[in-house]
Amino acid sequence: MTPQRRANLQRLLKPRHIAFIGGRYAEIAIVEARRRGFSGQMWAVNPKRREMEGLPCVGSVAELPEPPDAVYLAIPAEGVVKAIQDLAKMGAGGVVCFSAGFKEAGNADAERALIEATGDMALIGPNCYGVINYIDNAALWSFEHGGWSPGYGAAIITQSGMFSSDITMSQRSLPLAYMVSAGNQAVLGQEDFLEVFIDDPAVRAIGLHIEGLQDVARFERAALRALSKGIPVVALKTGSSAIGSELTVSHTGSLSGAVELYEALFARTGVISVTNPSQFLETLKFLCVAGAPKGVGVVGFTCSGGGATMLADHSEKIGLSFPQIDSAQHAQLAALLPDIATVSNPLDYTTPIWGQGEQTYPVFAKTMAATTADTAVLVQDYPAPGLDASKHYYQQDAAAFARAAKEHGVPAAICATLPENMDAATRELLVAEGIAPMQGIHETLNAIAQAVLWSRARECISLKEPLPLLPNRVIGVTTMLTEDKGKLWLSKHGIAVPHGRAVTGQRVCLAAEEVGYPVVLKMMSPQLAHKTDAGAVALNLVGSDALSAAAAQMSVDVKAYSPQAVSDLFLVEEMSPPPLAELVVTLRRDPQFGAALVLGSGGVLVELVGDVVTLLLPASPLDIADALQSLRVAGLLSGFRGRVKADLNKIADQIHRLCCTFIEEADEIAEIEINPLFVYPDRICAVDVLVHQAVGV
Amino acid sequence: MTPQRRANLQRLLKPRHIAFIGGRYAEIAIVEARRRGFSGQMWAVNPKRREMEGLPCVGSVAELPEPPDAVYLAIPAEGVVKAIQDLAKMGAGGVVCFSAGFKEAGNADAERALIEATGDMALIGPNCYGVINYIDNAALWSFEHGGWSPGYGAAIITQSGMFSSDITMSQRSLPLAYMVSAGNQAVLGQEDFLEVFIDDPAVRAIGLHIEGLQDVARFERAALRALSKGIPVVALKTGSSAIGSELTVSHTGSLSGAVELYEALFARTGVISVTNPSQFLETLKFLCVAGAPKGVGVVGFTCSGGGATMLADHSEKIGLSFPQIDSAQHAQLAALLPDIATVSNPLDYTTPIWGQGEQTYPVFAKTMAATTADTAVLVQDYPAPGLDASKHYYQQDAAAFARAAKEHGVPAAICATLPENMDAATRELLVAEGIAPMQGIHETLNAIAQAVLWSRARECISLKEPLPLLPNRVIGVTTMLTEDKGKLWLSKHGIAVPHGRAVTGQRVCLAAEEVGYPVVLKMMSPQLAHKTDAGAVALNLVGSDALSAAAAQMSVDVKAYSPQAVSDLFLVEEMSPPPLAELVVTLRRDPQFGAALVLGSGGVLVELVGDVVTLLLPASPLDIADALQSLRVAGLLSGFRGRVKADLNKIADQIHRLCCTFIEEADEIAEIEINPLFVYPDRICAVDVLVHQAVGV
Repeated sequence: MTPQRRANLQRLLKPRHIAFIGGRYAEIAIVEARRRGFSGQMWAVNPKRREMEGLPCVGSVAELPEPPDAVYLAIPAEGVVKAIQDLAKMGAGGVVCFSAGFKEAGNADAERALIEATGDMALIGPNCYGVINYIDNAALWSFEHGGWSPGYGAAIITQSGMFSSDITMSQRSLPLAYMVSAGNQAVLGQEDFLEVFIDDPAVRAIGLHIEGLQDVARFERAALRALSKGIPVVALKTGSSAIGSELTVSHTGSLSGAVELYEALFARTGVISVTNPSQFLETLKFLCVAGAPKGVGVVGFTCSGGGATMLADHSEKIGLSFPQIDSAQHAQLAALLPDIATVSNPLDYTTPIWGQGEQTYPVFAKTMAATTADTAVLVQDYPAPGLDASKHYYQQDAAAFARAAKEHGVPAAICATLPENMDAATRELLVAEGIAPMQGIHETLNAIAQAVLWSRARECISLKEPLPLLPNRVIGVTTMLTEDKGKLWLSKHGIAVPHGRAVTGQRVCLAAEEVGYPVVLKMMSPQLAHKTDAGAVALNLVGSDALSAAAAQMSVDVKAYSPQAVSDLFLVEEMSPPPLAELVVTLRRDPQFGAALVLGSGGVLVELVGDVVTLLLPASPLDIADALQSLRVAGLLSGFRGRVKADLNKIADQIHRLCCTFIEEADEIAEIEINPLFVYPDRICAVDVLVHQAVGV
Repeated sequence: MTPQRRANLQRLLKPRHIAFIGGRYAEIAIVEARRRGFSGQMWAVNPKRREMEGLPCVGSVAELPEPPDAVYLAIPAEGVVKAIQDLAKMGAGGVVCFSAGFKEAGNADAERALIEATGDMALIGPNCYGVINYIDNAALWSFEHGGWSPGYGAAIITQSGMFSSDITMSQRSLPLAYMVSAGNQAVLGQEDFLEVFIDDPAVRAIGLHIEGLQDVARFERAALRALSKGIPVVALKTGSSAIGSELTVSHTGSLSGAVELYEALFARTGVISVTNPSQFLETLKFLCVAGAPKGVGVVGFTCSGGGATMLADHSEKIGLSFPQIDSAQHAQLAALLPDIATVSNPLDYTTPIWGQGEQTYPVFAKTMAATTADTAVLVQDYPAPGLDASKHYYQQDAAAFARAAKEHGVPAAICATLPENMDAATRELLVAEGIAPMQGIHETLNAIAQAVLWSRARECISLKEPLPLLPNRVIGVTTMLTEDKGKLWLSKHGIAVPHGRAVTGQRVCLAAEEVGYPVVLKMMSPQLAHKTDAGAVALNLVGSDALSAAAAQMSVDVKAYSPQAVSDLFLVEEMSPPPLAELVVTLRRDPQFGAALVLGSGGVLVELVGDVVTLLLPASPLDIADALQSLRVAGLLSGFRGRVKADLNKIADQIHRLCCTFIEEADEIAEIEINPLFVYPDRICAVDVLVHQAVGV
């Protein structure tokens, strides 16, 4: 983003004046700006009308008293480019282009013309609902809108206008700072808004509804900057099922399509990933109001045995814990509770003291101190409006809890079991107290767990920030190296392969004597990507008779599999000893995300269980060790059933060397697939290898 | 339940008169009965007051004009038993006992006295909120309550008073028939209410919040009767984490604690299991209003690209599908849509026709016909109250959708992306049209998927209803048979084991010659439950030298492992050929659930992945085949990487024989663990066996 456009975006976000250009939708936008309480100047432009919503109309932008900071443009697509040219020429700040009929309707040329006409202006859209600033009370928005702000909040950027509208209509008292419906993102994209909102002091968290990113490397930099500034980013990535169909077709590659690349990007940058729209809002609310807890320990309170059980059940599933109360504190706490209560965490403090703030406060305070938890949660389902004669009891306990939580100094939430069982007045009261008013018991616990992961990511990444991604490398036609050449290439770059010889059929026995029995025999041909299926591999051959027989049989079997695959070129290798574990390791290049490492367990685990993890590169040895540890097969490397433990750092170092080579040789090598990679206690060996070379090198 | 009590329960549920006994809570209950619109007679009993809430008080139950059908009792615990005795004597129908201080407070004796005093009356509680009848407008309830009914609905029975109150306060327009807070279930339990509500014509679905069942066999019979009558039962089972700690400690047994037994029970009886309170209500709502779809095909409509994507994303994850539109229908549908729309399922019908019922109706109708889906869903987030000038557009499309869905004759729902984005008036309007007003896009799709599973369970179980469970068998002290004896027992009952001999150390070579090399050698001793860990197994021994050496080494190894485990008794067996797959099979007896079969994949899969499934017994060969198929390891049995396919029916038959034997020999055998069970293409072989015998037989 040029400095000029950045300045213009600030004018668009915090305008002194807005010009509304168009008819019916411009009228709506005028009403919405007033609804938001916009106090700047408002001008209407429509050559056919005298006034719109009480504003006198001018016939063209040339007649405006001065260049507007912000323009709401809703005219037929044909006139858009000319209007934008005029606005750019006169020095307008930015435009919300509601008009549709551009790239989304197949008119890429029209969109290019629009981009050109925009120059250094800030432009949101086309084909968008617009932008709302809840802090300075400005709106350029195409429909009735709701939403609320206590003076700070979340900045939300969506790629679906309808979804942004749904959010402004939500009944959650989510503190909002900005809402952007980014539309086609012809000029300003998610990455731009992310960069700008990180530096806005009113923004405590950023929510992104992502269909697809435009610039992964820029997103990475911005997201890491947000992380280091302590602004959590929450992403709702949609389109996994559609994008799934665009997965690459290569064998292991198909396990690492775009969904996995996005998840790898989010993990690398500490972005919280959610899939459910309600969870998106609840996680943002918890982060904005309560902040992120440091650890997984929760202290929970209910006035119901059922609620305590539900807290415990779901927490166990998502890795939160309830630190228990030691025996010394136990007696002190029991003295504060009714006889029928049982000292525990989560704690059902029971109805005899329900709603008696002077009796519940010491219980809250004492239990928080006794558990040294990282987050405090009170479950309260408020009665529905009109049925709430008992509401003051709830409020008493809420106030007591808020006081105790504030004194104890941990992030805290009051949550309703059912999302709707907390009224707006209560929610806003809690926000004022710094207590997150959370809706839904599972949503609350999920938000806490996600916030804890964010804290941990922040800590890890602050120790060693990842190197920038290397995307946008064009991959042309590729050719597959025969296995001996692939292994030679790996070996030259320091990756261990089995000792072996490439020879013609006549010389396999000679080669075996040099290598030493038992040996492995493989037929090599560019047509033999799936050697095992073709019968082109024979293992554990002892002696020349067995070897010769295997070679003869192999020619028969491969011919039956695919006549043109038959070759007289064989690889004779030493037999590798049984490893602790087998991995599948793939290195690929994605045009958008750059180089990626896919690690999976080999053998049946990857096929039956899908045990696989994707890392974007460059990755550190530590990242690789963590990724290995996240695989189920890692169990085999950590002393499974009395076996030797592997030195994961050494293993990760060797895989890291492979990754570095893959990055360095970007011009020469397109893809590497090692299946299996044998893992021994302190070394790896690439037992079977496919190297795809870029053609022409 | 005695016929007398059943008749009395009907009096309690549909009372002609209610007596309110007590002070403050009796007053609340009077108000709540009026709030519900109770039109029968109401009497107040309180010796110290003249009137309560406008009702004149009598001093004792003896002064009541006639025996009351229903009694709300909220007096101190000390007086409860006497009051109930009086009520029983005078011929009252039933009692809601709000009073607490019984079993839940450690006073089991008081609860026993209460049960005795109750006689054949119907009693809910003690320690409960009561019961609400939304059909006949009666309430015996202890707090302000909400809730709504269109004349039919769900009957909900909870074990948490607070949770039942939370549900009545929910804003979901869930059609309600009954709400029961069952409290301590001293007299009437979940099983009783389930039995009664199945036969109530106003009840379309039953929701159970279960902490623990009292009578599993009765629950099974009632749930199967509900299934065959077409009344879906939805269970929210809580306490998984607490009950988790009561898991048995035996090796594979620990994978099948109470949670798995409950899930097995639910699966066996077609009960829908949910874990999230919102999902509990949304699933009940979908079933009550729309009914259960026959298959997984969904036709989806949105007026937003974002919404269509979210529908598709989540559906893919939970096994719903969107049947696509064939090319013949494609053109016809395109003619009905705006140019900017893309023909697809889910379909974004786009804003140009939004809210134009005469244009959206043919789109809905045509697309439903073209996809032949089993369920229709329209996504609509209604604007918030006060911001809803555009609401009539939504209503137009809703009406058009309802008309098309009715004509097409499939279950249909309109769902809001965010749960709160559908107002009460809209929800009630949709219910009147037979369209489920669903809240939350994920909740909606989950409800549909669960309803489909219910339909399938109904179909399967109608073909062959499971045999009754055999619970409540007391298991005393047990002793472990040595492996040869365990195998002999299995073999006698028709389960294949490897051919072998049990001999002293001196005779192992002799035994091996009889068995034939290669052999397996195992040391046997009751102390050797974990033979491999102890070094008490040697495989694939060829020749007497190797065998003698192995026997000598084994004595050394076992001694090092545990001196008192050393034995001179050995098992010499033929070496089993490599199987297609290895299973772990455990047969156990649970005092509450009866006999259970736990099937898991053997080897690393069960330990690294937890690949395990539990079935309650008796189970049919088909049930066992289905359970096998649900394991990840089933992949190895279905032609994995070119191997032979196993005949799952034959394998299931043999496991079934084992189960039958386990059931028949209930007095003799307490537990059987086979690890591994080798699975071959058409047979099984129990390679390692632990049989636990009931002592004294």
